[in-house]
Amino acid sequence: MPAGRLTVVEDPADPRLADYTSLTDVALRRRLEPAEGLFMAEGEKVIRRALDAGYPMRSMLLTPRWVEAMADLIARADAPVHVVSPELAEAVTGYHVHRGALAAMGRRPLPDAASLLAGARRVVVLEAVNDHTNIGSVFRCAAALGMDAVLLSPDCADPLYRRSVKVSMGAVFALPYARLAGWPGGLTEVTGAGFRLLALTPDPAAVDLADAVAEATSGANGGANGGANGGANGGANGGANGGANGEAGGARLALMLGAEGDGLTRRALAAADRWVRIPMAHGIDSLNVAAAAAVACYALTQGPPASAR
Amino acid sequence: MPAGRLTVVEDPADPRLADYTSLTDVALRRRLEPAEGLFMAEGEKVIRRALDAGYPMRSMLLTPRWVEAMADLIARADAPVHVVSPELAEAVTGYHVHRGALAAMGRRPLPDAASLLAGARRVVVLEAVNDHTNIGSVFRCAAALGMDAVLLSPDCADPLYRRSVKVSMGAVFALPYARLAGWPGGLTEVTGAGFRLLALTPDPAAVDLADAVAEATSGANGGANGGANGGANGGANGGANGGANGEAGGARLALMLGAEGDGLTRRALAAADRWVRIPMAHGIDSLNVAAAAAVACYALTQGPPASAR
Repeated sequence: MPAGRLTVVEDPADPRLADYTSLTDVALRRRLEPAEGLFMAEGEKVIRRALDAGYPMRSMLLTPRWVEAMADLIARADAPVHVVSPELAEAVTGYHVHRGALAAMGRRPLPDAASLLAGARRVVVLEAVNDHTNIGSVFRCAAALGMDAVLLSPDCADPLYRRSVKVSMGAVFALPYARLAGWPGGLTEVTGAGFRLLALTPDPAAVDLADAVAEATSGANGGANGGANGGANGGANGGANGGANGEAGGARLALMLGAEGDGLTRRALAAADRWVRIPMAHGIDSLNVAAAAAVACYALTQGPPASAR
Repeated sequence: MPAGRLTVVEDPADPRLADYTSLTDVALRRRLEPAEGLFMAEGEKVIRRALDAGYPMRSMLLTPRWVEAMADLIARADAPVHVVSPELAEAVTGYHVHRGALAAMGRRPLPDAASLLAGARRVVVLEAVNDHTNIGSVFRCAAALGMDAVLLSPDCADPLYRRSVKVSMGAVFALPYARLAGWPGGLTEVTGAGFRLLALTPDPAAVDLADAVAEATSGANGGANGGANGGANGGANGGANGGANGEAGGARLALMLGAEGDGLTRRALAAADRWVRIPMAHGIDSLNVAAAAAVACYALTQGPPASAR
């Protein structure tokens, strides 16, 4: 252990454990975490992904069996490691510590929306998604299926809340995100960067998702939004992202998703360029948010179907 | 109330409530439910869907506020209705009764795989999925996205178990399913009906899902499996299903999915015609089972992407 500092802690009131106390109080953490600039990563895999993404580690709370398994990570992290019994971990945090490993990580300033948008071609825009499980699910789908970034309305929940981090399997570290300054006014930042806003809705007036993607990628969108985009396209990430998504067409597409149940608000729908829906069969009228996000992200990154064209 | 028989029940040991007792004992219900030929539908919407699908109702357990809201359904069902307090409902069932309405429904004999396959063009084949939530999620995605049927390996869990019914939002009633007699031997029924078996796997040797669908629907599969299919295609459901999926190509495709975590077994993979994978980005190596099923069902029913062809 050249770098990590291992200490065995046996008192749940030990002040070195302050980052880990009473994690189940959602309201409190929501308030405190951004202010104190920390978040929790849980389980070896997720902690590793947080470090890989460049987040600084403040400390780890490990049960003894994980000290050996995570030796390389302890060495690399250069942060205090508090070794505690599973019982003490539960007493301190207020819940059963999944996989016996928790890390308190430091936050970093969020990028602004403009710089994220400059280097992206496919983004997700979330409105008022304040369920932490759903935020995590959407990030996992969006990252896996090749979206470039996520934009959050001001009232979306924190993607780095413990539950979101866990459900996303660390995808919240892999996919860059920013918060829009206003709603729906902040959407002008997205359209100003040349993105076409596709609002996902079950409304019968919406067009088939695949048709909307085909329309946008066939160049029909070039005239309307193309002009605003000229200068912004040379950003730092433009090269890498452009290459990955180039085959899905030149248009820049933003997929707007609302909260499970309520969906997008009227004002968000009014701001969209197109309402799109996933065609459904067998009398089923909806998918859960993870499944709907997965289908829509797949359609946007893989391009429209060849059939029926 | 012309048909329904309403009785107020105040004793949790009342023998008329026998169908509803101790519902939380999963192992017991797994054993008992198929043998006794009943299953539980929970909440007005799901109960309505079960009736619409033609399942006979044995009885309902309702809290008073639902008696009025469900008056038409009570009249239509022609079954005893036991009106109980929320507290009694919980005492009898052992859990909080979601939306104050439970129905004990009679099962019907499952169709055999051959008759289901005769009228289908896109099916899901599940291997050893024994998590009730995942079974329900897969049915919801498969039904919504236009698959025609589900085939279960002998060791898959019961789609009519309470939790599966609830998670599926009633899709287990909308999408016909059958159980294969053996595994993986039963897959010869599927290939014998002219289906190409596409096994979903993260294996790097697998081909891109969209490429496999394009290959199959472009007619490359016609020679290999087309012959066996001639006579079977005129089944009872052929017209309706054929029309709905016709635009996605003439090939018959079966999507094989394994359990979350383990995935398909080696022997299932060995029996497949093609291994297919969902391309992933940002270092994410998997999707949850509902998201993966949704993407794969969408790709199969919507056809391959036009881009990169």
